[in-house]
This record gives sequence, structure tokens and C-alpha cells, in this order.
Amino acid sequence: MERIGSRRVYEGRVIDVRVDEFRYDDGETAEREIAEHPGAVGIVAHDGERIYLVRQPREAVAEAALLEVPAGKLDVEGESPLECAQRELVEEIGMRASAWTEIKRFYTSPGFAEEEVTLFVATGLDEVADHRPDPHERIEVVQWPLADLDGAIDACADAKSLIALLLFRGLRG
Amino acid sequence: MERIGSRRVYEGRVIDVRVDEFRYDDGETAEREIAEHPGAVGIVAHDGERIYLVRQPREAVAEAALLEVPAGKLDVEGESPLECAQRELVEEIGMRASAWTEIKRFYTSPGFAEEEVTLFVATGLDEVADHRPDPHERIEVVQWPLADLDGAIDACADAKSLIALLLFRGLRG
Repeated sequence: MERIGSRRVYEGRVIDVRVDEFRYDDGETAEREIAEHPGAVGIVAHDGERIYLVRQPREAVAEAALLEVPAGKLDVEGESPLECAQRELVEEIGMRASAWTEIKRFYTSPGFAEEEVTLFVATGLDEVADHRPDPHERIEVVQWPLADLDGAIDACADAKSLIALLLFRGLRG
Repeated sequence: MERIGSRRVYEGRVIDVRVDEFRYDDGETAEREIAEHPGAVGIVAHDGERIYLVRQPREAVAEAALLEVPAGKLDVEGESPLECAQRELVEEIGMRASAWTEIKRFYTSPGFAEEEVTLFVATGLDEVADHRPDPHERIEVVQWPLADLDGAIDACADAKSLIALLLFRGLRG
């Protein structure tokens, strides 16, 4: 399979859409409409007793705020997934971590979106002095007991949080 | 939080985009760009020895075909998630199942897309006579040994397959 053409069909503030044309090995061609995305990260941050989660409005899907792992988009030019995760952990929960382990990369919805998410476990947490969260983000930090990891999995409803917490549960054995 | 306005800004073949305006309880307003989506289903189908997976091209994200659980979009008017899952299981792997259990609903990427996926476990499998897969779908059925569930989790890279298989692993204890 090779890509033989590509054109931008919509440019929004957050979402851009392009249509790519592909030729398969048997000669057949097909067009695919793709929502462009720079990629994202998600973080299981814990101190051995608590996991640090966030609750925030997700206007696209729900009336109520969703419980999620700290996360963010790769929207800074040249930033690696690890650098993005380190920045987002400070921005969203006011913490730095001394140990980072990448546990998985996955696609949120490969039928129509190119978004790839890189997941990390972060430990060795330290509070950042003078952390002031961005009020426009409307993010509430939730300290969840690690002993109730199953409860956090039940309470989450987005792909990155579920995969991060389910994989983390498996790693803890 | 309430939605106070909505306008369609892009209509494509698969993807539509709308911009909604919200007012929060404190009076502040914000606009959100949202990729519309009818929802989807994913299915863990197994006969006690093998899980039935599929391998298919995902041009949006990868050169090679991806290994996934059988899945599909709610693109038939009035169809419930269960009916969609039953239809997709026949279309993709040529099987019917006598027992269906819903195990989770989740959002693939709630920051920008409204896609919600409903996951099922399907057992009591029976082959459908005269099943002819759609050649344009380019789907290859993969019978994966249930004893190597961890290997399937490692080999999958999309949200619905990972969440479905990880939850299924947890249910098996």
C-alpha cells in the first residue's frame, strides 16, 4: 500500500481534516478522510499510596466532568512525548516526577483519526513550588487511593485513562 | 454548564465537524470544535480456546495492517450497539454468538471527538453458512490462542482492542 495523493479539506482551530488517496498492492485505489492530530500523552502518577487523577469538563461528550489520568497534547513544536508528559504533569497537578517509564503507544481511533497516545508511569513525585493552575482549564486534582485501583478503572470512561490504569494494574500483578 | 449554540463547520464523507458554544456556571463562555461520530462497537469473541481477531489496513495511522478485535460503526439508522455488534460479527468473521455481555462504554478521545464505543464479550459461536466477506474491507480473520491473551494485548495498538482485551483478562481473573 502506498499513499499517492493528499489534500487538506478543512482547517479548524483544533481539528484539521485531510483526504489521502492510497493504492493497494492489487492496484485498487481508495480515498480516506483523516482527522489530523499531533499526538498526546497520558500519565499514571502515583506515590505508592495515591494515584493523582484529574476531573475536567469534556464538552464534546458529557454534561458532567470526566475523571481521567493527567494528559495533554503534543502541541509544542519539537517536543518529545516524554517532555510533553513532564510539562503536563506540572501544569495539571503541580508535580514533578524523578522516574518515568513508557508503558504503551496506541491509536485512539485509527479508522478516522491519526491521534497516537504515549502512556507513562511516573513515580518519585515532588510538589512544584508556587504552582498556579490555568483557571481556564477548569481542572480539579483528585487523589485516588491506590488500594482502590479497580474503582478508578470503573470510574474512568476515556480510552487513555482506561488503558493506562488497566496496564498499570497488570504490571503490579 | 449548558450548550448555548451549535453550528456545522465541515461536512465530509465520513467526518463532520461542528463548533458548539458553552456557558459555564460562573458565566464564562467557550467554544469547542467537535468531530461528530455515530458511535462504535468492539467485540471479544471466543470459543474457550481461540479469540477471533481481525487484521485490516488502517491508512490513517500505519503502513501495515493493524490487529484488532472485530468492530464497526453504528452507521445503520436506529440500530442499537448490541444489534450493530451482532451484524459486525457476521460481516467481519462470519460468526453468530448465542451469548452477549456488555462490559464497558468509553470515549475514544473526548477532547475533540464524540465517538463512544460499547464493548461486548460474545460466546456460543456458530459459523454462518455461505458467509462471503466484502473484499473492499480487506479484512483477514486471525484465530489467536486464548492461552496467549497477553500476546494479543501486546500485539494490539488501538484503543477499543486494548480496553476490550485488558478488561476481558481481568474478568477471567
